[in-house]
Amino acid sequence: MEFKVNSKELEKLLSKVIPAVPTRTPMSILENFLFEIKDGLLNIYATDLEISLKSSISVVADENESFVVQAKLLYEIVRSLKETTIHFTLTPSKKVNLVTDFGKYSLSYLDATEFPNLQTFEDDKEMNEVTINGNDLKNAFDKSSFAMSKEEMRPAMMGTLFEFSDNGLRFVTTDGHRLVNLLYKNVKSVFNNSYVVPERAVSVLSRILDEKDVRIRMNKAYMSFKLNDIELITRLISQKYPDYASVIPLENELTLKVNTKELLDSIKRMMLFSTSTTKRVKFSIKEKEIEISAEDLDLGASGEEKVSCEFSSDSLEIGFNCAYVQDVLSHLTSEEEIIFKLHSATKAVIIEPVQKKENIDIIMLLMPVRLNS
Amino acid sequence: MEFKVNSKELEKLLSKVIPAVPTRTPMSILENFLFEIKDGLLNIYATDLEISLKSSISVVADENESFVVQAKLLYEIVRSLKETTIHFTLTPSKKVNLVTDFGKYSLSYLDATEFPNLQTFEDDKEMNEVTINGNDLKNAFDKSSFAMSKEEMRPAMMGTLFEFSDNGLRFVTTDGHRLVNLLYKNVKSVFNNSYVVPERAVSVLSRILDEKDVRIRMNKAYMSFKLNDIELITRLISQKYPDYASVIPLENELTLKVNTKELLDSIKRMMLFSTSTTKRVKFSIKEKEIEISAEDLDLGASGEEKVSCEFSSDSLEIGFNCAYVQDVLSHLTSEEEIIFKLHSATKAVIIEPVQKKENIDIIMLLMPVRLNS
Repeated sequence: MEFKVNSKELEKLLSKVIPAVPTRTPMSILENFLFEIKDGLLNIYATDLEISLKSSISVVADENESFVVQAKLLYEIVRSLKETTIHFTLTPSKKVNLVTDFGKYSLSYLDATEFPNLQTFEDDKEMNEVTINGNDLKNAFDKSSFAMSKEEMRPAMMGTLFEFSDNGLRFVTTDGHRLVNLLYKNVKSVFNNSYVVPERAVSVLSRILDEKDVRIRMNKAYMSFKLNDIELITRLISQKYPDYASVIPLENELTLKVNTKELLDSIKRMMLFSTSTTKRVKFSIKEKEIEISAEDLDLGASGEEKVSCEFSSDSLEIGFNCAYVQDVLSHLTSEEEIIFKLHSATKAVIIEPVQKKENIDIIMLLMPVRLNS
Repeated sequence: MEFKVNSKELEKLLSKVIPAVPTRTPMSILENFLFEIKDGLLNIYATDLEISLKSSISVVADENESFVVQAKLLYEIVRSLKETTIHFTLTPSKKVNLVTDFGKYSLSYLDATEFPNLQTFEDDKEMNEVTINGNDLKNAFDKSSFAMSKEEMRPAMMGTLFEFSDNGLRFVTTDGHRLVNLLYKNVKSVFNNSYVVPERAVSVLSRILDEKDVRIRMNKAYMSFKLNDIELITRLISQKYPDYASVIPLENELTLKVNTKELLDSIKRMMLFSTSTTKRVKFSIKEKEIEISAEDLDLGASGEEKVSCEFSSDSLEIGFNCAYVQDVLSHLTSEEEIIFKLHSATKAVIIEPVQKKENIDIIMLLMPVRLNS
């Protein structure tokens, strides 16, 4: 079996599929690509059993054939070549030979049957479908993925909630300390359903999304993201997502308006002073000014700064985890000014942009921490 | 005690001295800066006991004082501030207060007496001295430092040899597998002496050298590098450097001329195929062409390429450690063509530029490895 392919085109193709190859796995077969030559098309697959990626190009081939080859090694070889034509040949001794004008390289291959079976979406009838712009989807992930939980105790919170409804498409992430709730009002669907997409699918998609439209299809167990020339299929997390709406306070009557960058810069400095275990930072809010302070007793260091604000009340003292405030603010830097909606020193705080957007609602939630005072 | 300093000027000053602060040390006092206010000058010192750095600026101060303060924390604080004036105050409770227009920060300090004594070069009479351009010195380090040994068994080889003579200033590095010998003919000195400078001094100097002249002073135990506004003093390695001249073969009569980049690109690809333990690559040299090949039996992968050349003999087979060839070639990429001078498959190979420079002689040496054939 022989086929020919341009080295730079193959490099591009492999670079799209390799993100699904796990870097550390006890199942060494997953460190491979599945090559499938079928009717003049070369399909390349990779999977870690949670997600799979597939991409294709046309090739000149003399017959149909599938085989499995070491992903990282092949990618490194192809990437190191100048632009040239690579002639692939499979030999009876289970070698793939790559021949170019100036070199010859040989790798072992395995039979395609050794590769795990891959989920497909061709014949599924219980399927829902929606289309979203790639940049919009990437933006949703960029703004929300930081708040996904890393705790394996609650598997659903380790993913991102996709909630389709008449209101639009809502993305929710939370680890119990922070929550992001982002609604795209203009992504309309004919169905009302929720799905929890695992972190790995989100992080791989973030790397490969561009301005082109994405066709999302889903059934109860899987979701497919079809980009221009690449398809990602992910398992869905089957555990129920926590009731996020019940934790968003409706009666936070105190408003605090601040400049996002000014507050973030101050928080970054306070990170240097907050104790590494608690990371506590204290906000002493007055009508026109927040005094922000932190103290690291181990280092014998402390810092305090003043940041101007507009507060709707007289005074309030509230503590936060400095790292969580920094996370939230650094994902709102596109907003010049933000509003904190507060009730008391122990109740969840809502943070949202002052300037609302027509098609996107975004709110973030932050749990305060207790002050020793 | 009080003094004032501009935050950006202080940041620049600290950034110059902080490279001497060790990142991991059992002696926590070394994680500090020594601040010395003396007659309107702020001198800041850092040391890891092998090297020390000192830099200075003018400040407005009300008296002379010295103290010791956490290097990394202070640097991070100062770096995170916008341009502003910082008022430093020492309090009786052993705190340094930093006050700016919008914030107040407080750190613990220690007495200057806790800081190790630092070597100075003011009164030494057995001192030699030479001046060299900063970029020339940096270039010498860039070209040669990779070949310093990491083996603690032979301490001298863990440094760079500075050999001052009538010929000029020669730099030598070797780990027994590779050797770099670089002579600056136009750096003349009135003395004939050799010194071995430790790796850490070389790597820190590489980071801070620029186009300005460097005044090098030395006695038997220490060497000082005085740049414009910064002084590095390093201990010298007292062990004798091996007799490098005796290992450079004089009678390598076979010459092999190749294009540096072509060979390097090929070697980089062969790195993918060479067994990770031996990293062996084989050169089968013919009159007009080298066949370069490597094989990784563990991965079941192999590669071979042809690179054109001009060889002064019929044929020679010789093996190298692929990583060492890559190291040598990647430090000769400023040369379009290089010459390998060979004698046999077991004798050290000399590699040098085809195009000689007027003031700089550079040769590299590479030991071959045995081929199983």
